[in-house]
Amino acid sequence: MLAGPGKKLLEMGLRRAQGPDGGLSASKYSYIGGFDWTSNVLAGKLYGIPVRGTVAHSYVMSFTSLEEVQPRTLKPLDGDEPVDFLPLAESWLRRVCQTLRVPQDRVNPGELAAFVSYAIAFPHNFQGLVDTYCIMGSGIPNFCAVALALNQLGYRAVGIRVDSGDLGKQAREIRQVLRTCSADFQVPWFATIPIAVSNDISERSLEELMQEGNEIDVIGIGTNVVTCPLQPSLGCVYKLVKVNSCPKLKLTEDEEKMTIPGSKVAYRFYDATGLAFMDLLALKEETPARAGQEVAVRLLGRSEEARRVTPTAVEILHRTYFKDGQVCQALPSLLEIKSHAQASLSMLGPAHKRLQDPEPYQIAVTEKLHILLSDLCRSSW
Amino acid sequence: MLAGPGKKLLEMGLRRAQGPDGGLSASKYSYIGGFDWTSNVLAGKLYGIPVRGTVAHSYVMSFTSLEEVQPRTLKPLDGDEPVDFLPLAESWLRRVCQTLRVPQDRVNPGELAAFVSYAIAFPHNFQGLVDTYCIMGSGIPNFCAVALALNQLGYRAVGIRVDSGDLGKQAREIRQVLRTCSADFQVPWFATIPIAVSNDISERSLEELMQEGNEIDVIGIGTNVVTCPLQPSLGCVYKLVKVNSCPKLKLTEDEEKMTIPGSKVAYRFYDATGLAFMDLLALKEETPARAGQEVAVRLLGRSEEARRVTPTAVEILHRTYFKDGQVCQALPSLLEIKSHAQASLSMLGPAHKRLQDPEPYQIAVTEKLHILLSDLCRSSW
Repeated sequence: MLAGPGKKLLEMGLRRAQGPDGGLSASKYSYIGGFDWTSNVLAGKLYGIPVRGTVAHSYVMSFTSLEEVQPRTLKPLDGDEPVDFLPLAESWLRRVCQTLRVPQDRVNPGELAAFVSYAIAFPHNFQGLVDTYCIMGSGIPNFCAVALALNQLGYRAVGIRVDSGDLGKQAREIRQVLRTCSADFQVPWFATIPIAVSNDISERSLEELMQEGNEIDVIGIGTNVVTCPLQPSLGCVYKLVKVNSCPKLKLTEDEEKMTIPGSKVAYRFYDATGLAFMDLLALKEETPARAGQEVAVRLLGRSEEARRVTPTAVEILHRTYFKDGQVCQALPSLLEIKSHAQASLSMLGPAHKRLQDPEPYQIAVTEKLHILLSDLCRSSW
Repeated sequence: MLAGPGKKLLEMGLRRAQGPDGGLSASKYSYIGGFDWTSNVLAGKLYGIPVRGTVAHSYVMSFTSLEEVQPRTLKPLDGDEPVDFLPLAESWLRRVCQTLRVPQDRVNPGELAAFVSYAIAFPHNFQGLVDTYCIMGSGIPNFCAVALALNQLGYRAVGIRVDSGDLGKQAREIRQVLRTCSADFQVPWFATIPIAVSNDISERSLEELMQEGNEIDVIGIGTNVVTCPLQPSLGCVYKLVKVNSCPKLKLTEDEEKMTIPGSKVAYRFYDATGLAFMDLLALKEETPARAGQEVAVRLLGRSEEARRVTPTAVEILHRTYFKDGQVCQALPSLLEIKSHAQASLSMLGPAHKRLQDPEPYQIAVTEKLHILLSDLCRSSW
């Protein structure tokens, strides 16, 4: 939502989730909420969420010199004889360093060895994690060299990942380098290699990244989506509202902990522009709310007179899937739930969705439910 | 720690934990960290943590009138014939209301029915959740009536629980009522019935509760201990520090993400008062740190000259329990870990433990490790 339609979101928070089970929940619900991919392979297997991964800094760091590259040969895509890939990458590195005016002796040879080994193992999926050492002085020249060597053999690199520093600024600088290489070496697709960023991205930092405009294609979010520091627990409870046809109410010193009695139905009201403007709770026995019909309602949490509203369209929100211990209708698939969530979000006005001071969405009860609530309050004290 | 030595801490956060696995971790680690009990029965079974529970508001709310009490008889503790417990409780309620000057028609009969039924089912474990309706006008009179009726049959109530409102103030008022009943009805133990509180208690609100002095005996903490809103994720990582005897370093744009290379040992230094004042990382091959011997160290995160420190006592922190895929020494029990954590905390000065602006604890590296770090930094760029 915040990232905008052109961006892909990768959930990658398993290591920071509260246990394996918490991690699976996080993968599942972030996918429902709008993420495109997960790095959680088990979530991919269990729920069919598309899986994407990356490479670890420790992989890059584990190489020290070019002697460690083993094997060194790679077959071109068109099936020709294998070629020694290492000298090919080295020759491209010389050309890249010249073009980018980077001193070649500053380029880390262990990093080049790591990229070359990766490319030989996964020529169709070469991705460069470029911030183990200096990004512009080593990571990017090494990436470009290996990607251009792969290109010579018919393969296309799939992306670049940056995991530290000023992500927006770096992505712009990297994009510039990719464009330069694309033009200088006449490799058109090179200019649009996807750039992925990660590094403790939160809603707040994501908003800033998007505001400043950027060259980022993929956003990897871990900790902040799996643990949600702004609201690390969901403060909902289930309470008794009715026993043997008798509506029940819990009164407490904290007004917000008071329950709403009785068996209820919930409606969502839409205005003429198609946006939702109110959710209404009514007693089950009341006449159903209908589009175009005026209804008297009381807003929850405000002590004011009843107000009258007329919805242009009405949606019944409550559906029973589990009754008397049995599943009583087919459960939607994860993709159906995801579509439903996206559709619901699109019918919510932007004022409710903004990060800064969002406008509270209106929740109301019918006049009849309001009277029951008042009566029970009086009789309980 | 914050609650003070006389208080008991009950972890009760399972419903807000991130999945069953996250809930078990929370129960286990809050016990290690100083909690006394858990409401998580599975954690009790798996880890041997003492289990304590309470009653739900829905249980109290499910009763409407005294007709619902079934069965009504209770055998006195000394084994005499069962007596009809309901009229006994009702007669005590009249006396209690008179003593406390509470109008008896304001006392909720459903609540009395719930307490009486509970007492008949668990006469040895009667506990009153007193805030379903009005605490002082209904919950407390009903509790006192049932507890005094139980007392007449030889049983002692085990406690009172309040789950809303100003907990400190209510506990003081309740204690006053218990003392009044204790004196008026000559039941000495009644004055000291444990009062338990809960309701979204955090470190901050706990500190306030403790500062104002109170009559609280048991503190139930849920959400805030299982999800830790101040730090909902633990930002630690494991990184590569050595490959085939070659120390490794990850440089990044973010200095704090830089790793410390090489295989290391960790020491804790104690001063003459027995308090820990510094943890020191040294390379494995260095001469071990010893009590009374001066050592040159560099504080992490500060660019300053080496300083010299002389510990009065030295503890080696790093112990190997898992090596080459095998557990290589017996693992301590949960109680041993709990004692170790408490002992470690007691050797940390109060300045590091205060809630407001705690003083950062010093972490340092040896001069030799500092030089290795500088050398690797230079050669990597």
